[in-house]
Amino acid sequence: MDKIERVGVSLDKTLLGEFDHLISKQGYTNRSEAIRDLIRESLSKDKLANPAAPAVAGVFLVYDHHFTKLTDKLLKLQHSHLLQVIASTHVHLDHHNCLEVIILKGKVKDIEDLANNITALKGVKLSRMNLMTIG
Amino acid sequence: MDKIERVGVSLDKTLLGEFDHLISKQGYTNRSEAIRDLIRESLSKDKLANPAAPAVAGVFLVYDHHFTKLTDKLLKLQHSHLLQVIASTHVHLDHHNCLEVIILKGKVKDIEDLANNITALKGVKLSRMNLMTIG
Amino acid sequence: MDKIERVGVSLDKTLLGEFDHLISKQGYTNRSEAIRDLIRESLSKDKLANPAAPAVAGVFLVYDHHFTKLTDKLLKLQHSHLLQVIASTHVHLDHHNCLEVIILKGKVKDIEDLANNITALKGVKLSRMNLMTIG
Amino acid sequence: MDKIERVGVSLDKTLLGEFDHLISKQGYTNRSEAIRDLIRESLSKDKLANPAAPAVAGVFLVYDHHFTKLTDKLLKLQHSHLLQVIASTHVHLDHHNCLEVIILKGKVKDIEDLANNITALKGVKLSRMNLMTIG
Repeated sequence: MDKIERVGVSLDKTLLGEFDHLISKQGYTNRSEAIRDLIRESLSKDKLANPAAPAVAGVFLVYDHHFTKLTDKLLKLQHSHLLQVIASTHVHLDHHNCLEVIILKGKVKDIEDLANNITALKGVKLSRMNLMTIG
Repeated sequence: MDKIERVGVSLDKTLLGEFDHLISKQGYTNRSEAIRDLIRESLSKDKLANPAAPAVAGVFLVYDHHFTKLTDKLLKLQHSHLLQVIASTHVHLDHHNCLEVIILKGKVKDIEDLANNITALKGVKLSRMNLMTIG
Repeated sequence: MDKIERVGVSLDKTLLGEFDHLISKQGYTNRSEAIRDLIRESLSKDKLANPAAPAVAGVFLVYDHHFTKLTDKLLKLQHSHLLQVIASTHVHLDHHNCLEVIILKGKVKDIEDLANNITALKGVKLSRMNLMTIG
Repeated sequence: MDKIERVGVSLDKTLLGEFDHLISKQGYTNRSEAIRDLIRESLSKDKLANPAAPAVAGVFLVYDHHFTKLTDKLLKLQHSHLLQVIASTHVHLDHHNCLEVIILKGKVKDIEDLANNITALKGVKLSRMNLMTIG
């Protein structure tokens, strides 16, 4: 376990009051934890600006149910050797639409390249991607 | 199956050339399909502005592996009766971190309320959310 | 001037080290100030979720130089009585394109309605909008 | 003037109906123009992924009125020789806050570097950036 350090932050009273109100609304019971989460978030954003940073992504695809499971096709098309599929989940949304969530590991750049080209796949109607750096 | 209509679009030659180049790079083999995807995307964005629109969401959580599966806790905390969990996938990222992807159905507003409060959950280090309208 | 309070935050050493490295890269000379900025940003995001919150916006328009100054047209079309133009700046980008930046004051909801409809204005090729809450 | 070409797009009736409804709500009087705007937007997004692409940016700063005009400081700090200030507009928001909008020209990468470091400037409370590719 990492050594814990204690850091002091100066805040004017109004700003602190507003912040305490916000984090209590969000469900935090502890101010330190809320500030740690802001710090983690800013570190994560910074790492995402590095194309070579290791990341994990969730790719969401809504596609026509007449098309078969797309995971294989997707990765074959997209230099799959650069990305590693950790898991994929298939959900039947309605008569016309399937949702597939694919969890991938790879470099930021390779994941973004994939995300930019997914919607072009035959049958894919909408796509979204979430990217988080790790480690 | 829906009736297909044919629509004419006027484009200046330079814009058309750039667009053809982009969609070929993205992997489209068909200009109509690329334009249909742009149209679907603009409709999807518009629907997301409606708090009552039905939507499907993917919630991404990175959390400390010392905490147990969060899905139940999450939904208990967050008026779970308004949201329906369709599926959840749990992935072991490394010694310290787990990733959990939860696919939810519900109204735009209820999903956004959930997303705003997730990071406050004890043990959650990072969270991301994707929202897509359906139907 | 507001009363200053001193708040303690517990951080594990690794996280603190990474954060110190990031903020030094960003040009901060003071850790308190970096954390205050994260707090302000999180408060600002939260306020933007309230449609009635007072906000200031910067609207960016790239448009064809054959069309005349759009500010008036824009606000006439868009319930101008709900929004107040503070300033607008017009820039000649190149032979074909002008850029206009319009600074507006109004409620979050009214500004977003405007932003969603701007690109539809005859001659507007691209638009972007920034929204910040104030006060 | 560029030569105009006519392109045919096949759309199912439901999708076309929804699109016509959306663009009419947005104020379009012409379907071709709405589709052209979607195409321009997708081209613009693609160009922004190229760090060397020429772009124009609007930087928004909210800062404490006790600090003097920041434009000069900003550019001195940030390799100003890579960016060209086209115009800047200063607005007095309220007793505590000034807004400054700075219109810049430069490469995508150089503008993003600037944007990532602005909030660190002494006195800056919030910053936002808009980026559009040109030419």
